[in-house]
Amino acid sequence: MDQRYIDELTGIVGAENISTEILELEVYSRDPTVVKGRAEVIIWPRTPEDVSEILRLANKIKKPVYPRGAGSSLCGGPVPVKPGIVLCMERMNRILEIDIENLQFLAEAGVSIREINDTLKPHSLFIPPDPASEVSCTIGGCVANNAGGIHAVKYGTFRDWVLGLEIVLPTGEIITTGTRTRKSVSGYDLTGLITGSEGTLAVITKVRAKLTPLPESRMVMTAFFSNPEDAGKASFKIMVGNLNPSAIELLDKTTMDTISQYLRMKFPPAGAMLIIEFDGPINEVPDRLGKAGSICKDEGAIEVKVSESEEESLKLWTARKTAFQSLAILGKASILIEDITVPISKVPEMLRRIQEISKKNNTLIPTFGHVGDGNLHPHVLYDEENSDEYTRAMNATDEIFKTAIELGGTISGEHGVGVLKRKFFPLEHRAEEIMLMKRIKSLLDPNNILNPDKIFPLEAEA
Amino acid sequence: MDQRYIDELTGIVGAENISTEILELEVYSRDPTVVKGRAEVIIWPRTPEDVSEILRLANKIKKPVYPRGAGSSLCGGPVPVKPGIVLCMERMNRILEIDIENLQFLAEAGVSIREINDTLKPHSLFIPPDPASEVSCTIGGCVANNAGGIHAVKYGTFRDWVLGLEIVLPTGEIITTGTRTRKSVSGYDLTGLITGSEGTLAVITKVRAKLTPLPESRMVMTAFFSNPEDAGKASFKIMVGNLNPSAIELLDKTTMDTISQYLRMKFPPAGAMLIIEFDGPINEVPDRLGKAGSICKDEGAIEVKVSESEEESLKLWTARKTAFQSLAILGKASILIEDITVPISKVPEMLRRIQEISKKNNTLIPTFGHVGDGNLHPHVLYDEENSDEYTRAMNATDEIFKTAIELGGTISGEHGVGVLKRKFFPLEHRAEEIMLMKRIKSLLDPNNILNPDKIFPLEAEA
Repeated sequence: MDQRYIDELTGIVGAENISTEILELEVYSRDPTVVKGRAEVIIWPRTPEDVSEILRLANKIKKPVYPRGAGSSLCGGPVPVKPGIVLCMERMNRILEIDIENLQFLAEAGVSIREINDTLKPHSLFIPPDPASEVSCTIGGCVANNAGGIHAVKYGTFRDWVLGLEIVLPTGEIITTGTRTRKSVSGYDLTGLITGSEGTLAVITKVRAKLTPLPESRMVMTAFFSNPEDAGKASFKIMVGNLNPSAIELLDKTTMDTISQYLRMKFPPAGAMLIIEFDGPINEVPDRLGKAGSICKDEGAIEVKVSESEEESLKLWTARKTAFQSLAILGKASILIEDITVPISKVPEMLRRIQEISKKNNTLIPTFGHVGDGNLHPHVLYDEENSDEYTRAMNATDEIFKTAIELGGTISGEHGVGVLKRKFFPLEHRAEEIMLMKRIKSLLDPNNILNPDKIFPLEAEA
Repeated sequence: MDQRYIDELTGIVGAENISTEILELEVYSRDPTVVKGRAEVIIWPRTPEDVSEILRLANKIKKPVYPRGAGSSLCGGPVPVKPGIVLCMERMNRILEIDIENLQFLAEAGVSIREINDTLKPHSLFIPPDPASEVSCTIGGCVANNAGGIHAVKYGTFRDWVLGLEIVLPTGEIITTGTRTRKSVSGYDLTGLITGSEGTLAVITKVRAKLTPLPESRMVMTAFFSNPEDAGKASFKIMVGNLNPSAIELLDKTTMDTISQYLRMKFPPAGAMLIIEFDGPINEVPDRLGKAGSICKDEGAIEVKVSESEEESLKLWTARKTAFQSLAILGKASILIEDITVPISKVPEMLRRIQEISKKNNTLIPTFGHVGDGNLHPHVLYDEENSDEYTRAMNATDEIFKTAIELGGTISGEHGVGVLKRKFFPLEHRAEEIMLMKRIKSLLDPNNILNPDKIFPLEAEA
């Protein structure tokens, strides 16, 4: 990038908020996935006006800008796939207002979910959606991706919690959207349009979101099954039984095995397990938990066990949250983390089909996920250097997406499309719908400078 | 309208689905409000393809098209303010699919909420948002207006229930949006963009929405207070107390008096009342109701009474639902029904300020509404023939909107902006935000033929 533009950018944010250090450029050119890009400069804006000026300059010189929260995307979302500016929101990290009476807060985009919830805890309040990366992931990134997590099954995704946004359009206009009220029908839902648009329509600079009181109590239960299908059936029955669990997670045998090795935990011998949580008033939770336990037994659970302490429950959630890291034990260099979601009645079939696809392609596909929402994370493992293995992994991935769509599902439940799933996008959406989305993108970003080449398939892929 | 275009429209839908009868034109030129328009022709499409052809013709001849459900809008939403085509969706009225396992249904836009819920009842399922007009109002109209109703306080508005839509763009393209799954992050939220856009961005032809099991039990309680402010404080305390009521309605003294005359019901002498409902498992509801009763007493309730039978509860809800009609007893020819919503902590102040505005302008403003959501319906009554009274009513209306915005509120919680509130729209939204909304409108409707002159202030009003 031309030095005079670096100088112009430095003039906007100050020398302490910009970097062209090789090592930093390397770090900010990736996320945890296999997608790699090329950052030319990293810039840390401090105000919406900074963001506006940066975007205006980018338009002038036609240089792509890649907004980035904590970089914990699992689809290549913030990766600078074309050489460009990484717009790092992590220094806009103040919580600006906590309105306890109206159960809402206003925060800059770069605050982490963990920090928000730590700040709220003394008030016995929280914002429930908690992606596995909640320690670091930012509220801006979560809204941009409409993130979910284990509690989405009861509490929904970020879309259900956002009240309003401050955004900067690709062309530089600063706009406040939304409301402070519980309801509003006053013009178009711009908040909703930006939520889940993966940083392609606007840069989110502030988020106003709802809060809710911390539940009075929580109880966790595990149920072990001889195969994933039975676990899927039990999960489905719990969901249609209106028991309203705050989490239902499935782990298959491979995942259980890797976790027990990684964390030195012991599980009973089984083909799959569910971790089920209920939260709410202390006089309501045990009853609901009991009913869920009976359903598991009816569906053939080998063993059902209620956690006896907060500590034991925490250990289980830690196990679930390290499921991804523990797969490293399997010694495969590359992982494609899928995020398919199917209607809940189709979960048992989807689980069966994943096993078939795994066998057919002779590919390891450990699977876990938010089964109560129908949201499964099959992890396709392979060695990139082994071209035969790579081909089999790609075939398996194709088949997983096609199966999910065939069963009425979606290609992404919570991770977004980003780079990794864009070629599967037309499986789910017809040409007319994609065209309308693209027209909205062009309206807001006429020079295509904001996070280009995400969501929509490239011409070569279409 | 030129006869050859009437003939062309007749060719699209058949002679039995079009009318230019004077009396019908008169009926379809209005809604229940004071807004009047001029329908030139009424047309009842039977398929999305009909809608598409009608819109393509309308674009060719630059003739406005006004989509209409049951016509129960309370803001002039479907009124043909420019001479044009009324596109009446009431004959696209089939329920196409009920997917009990995945708790969702697919229906054509013209089915009424009542019919949907009657059809679901044998399955012990329902869709909770129930505008007071649920007997007739259509699912398409409800989604277009993001309607709410008394149960929104627990269950949210239609936005929270819609999974996907079939829409026809003003330029004729038929598009399917959304998903069948509980979660999805796959492209822009077109479903959300259309929801609440008041029929200005697209014609909704089908709705896929979520269902939920009917609650095991329901209990209703009334609490009487010496003034609306105290009732507002009790409501606020119940809301922040995480008791999760399924309804909290406020009625002020004038409303109580007119209802007791209209329905020959007897209420204790009081300045305001709350009707509070809880629903859920039979072992949870009485406890929550008891806690809410204690809060009411702490906030100075004169009397708290739990309904002793389903019949008594029903009678109370009928009373609430006839609140609007009963105002006729006051003998004023015209009513402006406002729909302001404020953050819940501001409800007591808003109620006090409405009383002040009423006194200052010497105008009757009976007020009731969904107080748990902060959503109040002050009814400004006046005789149009009395110019002094008219002026005072208009002043009072202005002051109500300004006060709501000053308290951090919105000009509409559930009725929409339509014609009646468009001049107040810039009170709530800044120029940059309105500009973006208008650009989206122009993108989708380049000839401004779909429900023009709604939401955004006319130039003379701005």
